[in-house]
Amino acid sequence: MQWIDVRSDTVTQPTPAMRQAMFDAVVGDDVYGDDPTVQELERAAAERLGKEAALFVPSGNFGNQLALLTHCRRGDEVILGDDCHIVWHETGGAAVIAGVQLRTIASPDGVLSAAEVAKRIRIGDDIHHPHTGLICLENAHSNGRVIPLAAMQAVAEVAAAHGVPVHLDGARVFNAATYLQCDVRDITLHADTVMVCLSKGLAAPVGSILAGPAGFIARARKNRKLMGGGWRQAGVLAAPGLIALTEMSQRLAEDHANARYLAERLATLPGVTVDLASVEINMVWFRLADSVDVARLMATLTEAGIKANPPEAGMMRIVTHWQVGRAEIERVLAALQQALVG
Amino acid sequence: MQWIDVRSDTVTQPTPAMRQAMFDAVVGDDVYGDDPTVQELERAAAERLGKEAALFVPSGNFGNQLALLTHCRRGDEVILGDDCHIVWHETGGAAVIAGVQLRTIASPDGVLSAAEVAKRIRIGDDIHHPHTGLICLENAHSNGRVIPLAAMQAVAEVAAAHGVPVHLDGARVFNAATYLQCDVRDITLHADTVMVCLSKGLAAPVGSILAGPAGFIARARKNRKLMGGGWRQAGVLAAPGLIALTEMSQRLAEDHANARYLAERLATLPGVTVDLASVEINMVWFRLADSVDVARLMATLTEAGIKANPPEAGMMRIVTHWQVGRAEIERVLAALQQALVG
Amino acid sequence: MQWIDVRSDTVTQPTPAMRQAMFDAVVGDDVYGDDPTVQELERAAAERLGKEAALFVPSGNFGNQLALLTHCRRGDEVILGDDCHIVWHETGGAAVIAGVQLRTIASPDGVLSAAEVAKRIRIGDDIHHPHTGLICLENAHSNGRVIPLAAMQAVAEVAAAHGVPVHLDGARVFNAATYLQCDVRDITLHADTVMVCLSKGLAAPVGSILAGPAGFIARARKNRKLMGGGWRQAGVLAAPGLIALTEMSQRLAEDHANARYLAERLATLPGVTVDLASVEINMVWFRLADSVDVARLMATLTEAGIKANPPEAGMMRIVTHWQVGRAEIERVLAALQQALVG
Amino acid sequence: MQWIDVRSDTVTQPTPAMRQAMFDAVVGDDVYGDDPTVQELERAAAERLGKEAALFVPSGNFGNQLALLTHCRRGDEVILGDDCHIVWHETGGAAVIAGVQLRTIASPDGVLSAAEVAKRIRIGDDIHHPHTGLICLENAHSNGRVIPLAAMQAVAEVAAAHGVPVHLDGARVFNAATYLQCDVRDITLHADTVMVCLSKGLAAPVGSILAGPAGFIARARKNRKLMGGGWRQAGVLAAPGLIALTEMSQRLAEDHANARYLAERLATLPGVTVDLASVEINMVWFRLADSVDVARLMATLTEAGIKANPPEAGMMRIVTHWQVGRAEIERVLAALQQALVG
Repeated sequence: MQWIDVRSDTVTQPTPAMRQAMFDAVVGDDVYGDDPTVQELERAAAERLGKEAALFVPSGNFGNQLALLTHCRRGDEVILGDDCHIVWHETGGAAVIAGVQLRTIASPDGVLSAAEVAKRIRIGDDIHHPHTGLICLENAHSNGRVIPLAAMQAVAEVAAAHGVPVHLDGARVFNAATYLQCDVRDITLHADTVMVCLSKGLAAPVGSILAGPAGFIARARKNRKLMGGGWRQAGVLAAPGLIALTEMSQRLAEDHANARYLAERLATLPGVTVDLASVEINMVWFRLADSVDVARLMATLTEAGIKANPPEAGMMRIVTHWQVGRAEIERVLAALQQALVG
Repeated sequence: MQWIDVRSDTVTQPTPAMRQAMFDAVVGDDVYGDDPTVQELERAAAERLGKEAALFVPSGNFGNQLALLTHCRRGDEVILGDDCHIVWHETGGAAVIAGVQLRTIASPDGVLSAAEVAKRIRIGDDIHHPHTGLICLENAHSNGRVIPLAAMQAVAEVAAAHGVPVHLDGARVFNAATYLQCDVRDITLHADTVMVCLSKGLAAPVGSILAGPAGFIARARKNRKLMGGGWRQAGVLAAPGLIALTEMSQRLAEDHANARYLAERLATLPGVTVDLASVEINMVWFRLADSVDVARLMATLTEAGIKANPPEAGMMRIVTHWQVGRAEIERVLAALQQALVG
Repeated sequence: MQWIDVRSDTVTQPTPAMRQAMFDAVVGDDVYGDDPTVQELERAAAERLGKEAALFVPSGNFGNQLALLTHCRRGDEVILGDDCHIVWHETGGAAVIAGVQLRTIASPDGVLSAAEVAKRIRIGDDIHHPHTGLICLENAHSNGRVIPLAAMQAVAEVAAAHGVPVHLDGARVFNAATYLQCDVRDITLHADTVMVCLSKGLAAPVGSILAGPAGFIARARKNRKLMGGGWRQAGVLAAPGLIALTEMSQRLAEDHANARYLAERLATLPGVTVDLASVEINMVWFRLADSVDVARLMATLTEAGIKANPPEAGMMRIVTHWQVGRAEIERVLAALQQALVG
Repeated sequence: MQWIDVRSDTVTQPTPAMRQAMFDAVVGDDVYGDDPTVQELERAAAERLGKEAALFVPSGNFGNQLALLTHCRRGDEVILGDDCHIVWHETGGAAVIAGVQLRTIASPDGVLSAAEVAKRIRIGDDIHHPHTGLICLENAHSNGRVIPLAAMQAVAEVAAAHGVPVHLDGARVFNAATYLQCDVRDITLHADTVMVCLSKGLAAPVGSILAGPAGFIARARKNRKLMGGGWRQAGVLAAPGLIALTEMSQRLAEDHANARYLAERLATLPGVTVDLASVEINMVWFRLADSVDVARLMATLTEAGIKANPPEAGMMRIVTHWQVGRAEIERVLAALQQALVG
């Protein structure tokens, strides 16, 4: 039996084409700047994201921390959402590596209020105040929500008015573009720099992209070395990364449709509450009634060959990706139905 | 003409008794642990604040940053109010010196919600999460508000339940105790460590105290050296500091009464709005109507020999202290009346 | 024409068996701890290096910096050789990431004098002194020299006597073991933790190992996440890494023999001076006489399809590896002879 | 009995004139820039040291760390002597606060070789290399030696040729100028910035000066706030500081003469070896023969009312200052004679 893994899209395995690409990859020593496949990926990513240059990095976490380090001087303040990935899931790295002070603000549904951002920007000579070095956005948000372009634009305008750069944690920016039915550049134009994961829904085994102005990327390249992210024959990862960037990024609507289908069906099950309006990309969050026997639910899923994370505080998440198609969704639904209806 | 300085209580000049104490101070090399006056101050401060030990430091900012550095490992997360002094007025030092990640939460009137704190505490082995290393409170808050004992206790209980220490920025903790009509130890018992300023309303020229458990203070003593705060013949500052601690801390009710008198009189002036409920210590905040000619107001004050900070976003602050008694308040009121009534 | 690349062993391309292993790799999400191939590599590496546990990391630089971060508290002092890789080639990362103070001492031929180390160890409560948190050794040294076991043991004994841990930068530790004709564990037993590169002479495309006590590796795993080195389907890299560890590590004597052969032949060329005693692993350093026309030399090599780094301050380096066998050496010698003899 | 304290010149007590100056000091809130006595001290110090601007800081350690933080970006490399104060006696602060990588080189008698410095300067784009951000000199060295002007000039020229700034730890720069019989500006002209202690031989109770270009000092003023060194009514310390700077700096030849007298007399005692050539300022180092009963020696000194540090590894140090004149030297000699001769 093949497991169905709906815990996250981070679990995606490389596609057969990606494995072949790894096998065939033309490689060189990328620390020397000699890997042609890495260079091709970086060129393609910069073009695709509408930026001057791009850099291949080991992970999304690495790309975000590298952006903080390269944008800011230590002691600078970074304004960002209270529930964004940099705050929640990067192990406190911002204070260790970049040495920046996070200024977290509430961000309902992942949206930062431009007015709240504006109130916190601090530029100038007052010796009491840190300098606002960066504003971070996240789209799609790791909670599965997509930030409207107008909301991004509003923050970008506030930032530009004060001369503060904007970094976009775009780990799932192609999911956001798919939902918004826009070119990914319509999103990235609201940020000076952007980090994009080639893993997750795009299925590359390892690696992310940091893109931005050429001068910024040159400095980031040195900082990447400092952080230990200088790779040797990284072409073996860049080759599947190219497939992720150019091909897998085109098929996300399928994952989104599957998520929506799942959500709509879930909404009909007893003991389940789904906010359908919150299902925008490939993530479905739903609430289980207190009456649900969680242990039995999880056991039923496991017996059915389904890997899922247990609910936290009553909320459960299922994520779709290229290995979770309509057939797999049906199996998940059947198992949930069995557990909930009996 | 003697200036009346109502910009802050940080402007207080040493009293004549303090000048005499500096002149007479018995001193030694405090880096060697040889200054008897510093030792006397540290003993007296520890006793007064209900802690095992205390350390004399160059400023309140220094004491707070030293507490962060000594409580936390770098990368730890610190939960604190969005508008507290450490966030607003310490130049981003937390990320530079202690290397900690600030987790700021809204704190209306300076009060942290214990429930909001609890939601953000992160203890355990999840590799995505920083470790919550500290919770910071501030009482009296630098906005002039006093935190009720019950609110402090609620946070302290949440902290204790998770084994997280609490640091109190008590720059004006004697003002808080005066307002609450309690012993200062009734406040400090809700924190593992406390920083108290001997300058500000207590009028010492330079210096603050960091107090806490003996082991903590021993480590802080080494960290104080690392931060460049090891002093030589610091007894010349400890001598007025002792007067601040033991005598000036007893007379703050007078400053508070003067502030309240000022607030009540201000409330009768045209173009002025005062929230009398917000006047708890020696600070009076009031709103000026848009119709007020601010330039003329400031000029009138200056002509009357009064140093005041101009309003920001319509809000003006006046602070009382030992050099601003009832007579000085009357002069301030007269000048404001002249400017506002004409 | 196939280029012959003698610039470094970092340029090694994956072997055909490695490409097949990537293609076939069984993978999972390693951040979840789900990648069986990564787990197999980490188990095998720990066993091979004689340590309790091991961790797969993106680069040697990353592994060294991770070791510093995990061994030390910030502000700790690290004693190490003036010319070691951490000092020379890691972009100042030690002060940024681990926040440690380097204490560099002269290390002729890469050897740290145990007596000089002992003089610099600082343990205790003196508030003026940082705490010695770590001693770093490097074997084989990046200058191509092998440190005798007795020299390592002497430092290890000094370290143990003071309770200071030792980290070994063993980027090329299998080269050292090959030269010393000992098991690699005879070297690693003199260090608490060791970093080994699977790239370089071992030819894996990407990745290094950090090995040590189980508790240390558990903490390093969290710190790896903090530094952005958490990988997803890293099995695609672990699979060739296993071949590097188990097979390629057995064939280094061949590279060493080729280097020695090259050195002996070079010694017969006009304008070349080689210290044959310094040729211990796969690196040959030689001095070019001032009379040598360097531009012509480099042009001749390029025409012959040979990539080599130009001499610095008269010293030139050639490195052998699995893609530079006896036939390639002969071509290099022929080109050098042509350039030098004419 | 009045103790004679020859442990260090850091133990100097303020003179009666200094106590009177503290009593009389005109003060203001220096964080607001309102303290006229601090301003007078900063102006006088800048002029005296031949720099555009100066800043009053809590200690020499603070001034040095502030210089590192203000000159460098984190990750920069700082070249300095292996035995200088920043390395030995500042608790590892350079890695914590400035986040810089120390590159320590041997410095016999405190002198840095310009050639050795030049070999370590690293400027440019190589991603492997940190950027050399600063070179530090120390004169007089804390070991009591004075660096010849020519040696300073040689390093300054190397630094200037590479565009690297030079910071001088001039804790005892007036002792150096006294020994060299030059104006202190003849020394400070070889450094971009200089830190000078007003305590130590100059007898002020607390405080040091950091001087340099106006733009640098403006940035240092903000960084001083970040480090917690913003003072309120610091005029009470600036007033004795002015006496230290202008008057006490003129009388150091007396201390040096007393030290030399002591050294010459010591040389005649049995069991004592003094290198008279090493006695350049107010410090006398001498070696005690193994046969000397150290416990008895220290007891004899204590009985005679003399505070001295015990010998370390056979070397003992005695320091002269304004409270250790010829009469006190005679008492010290008598006690030593009694202990050594019996």
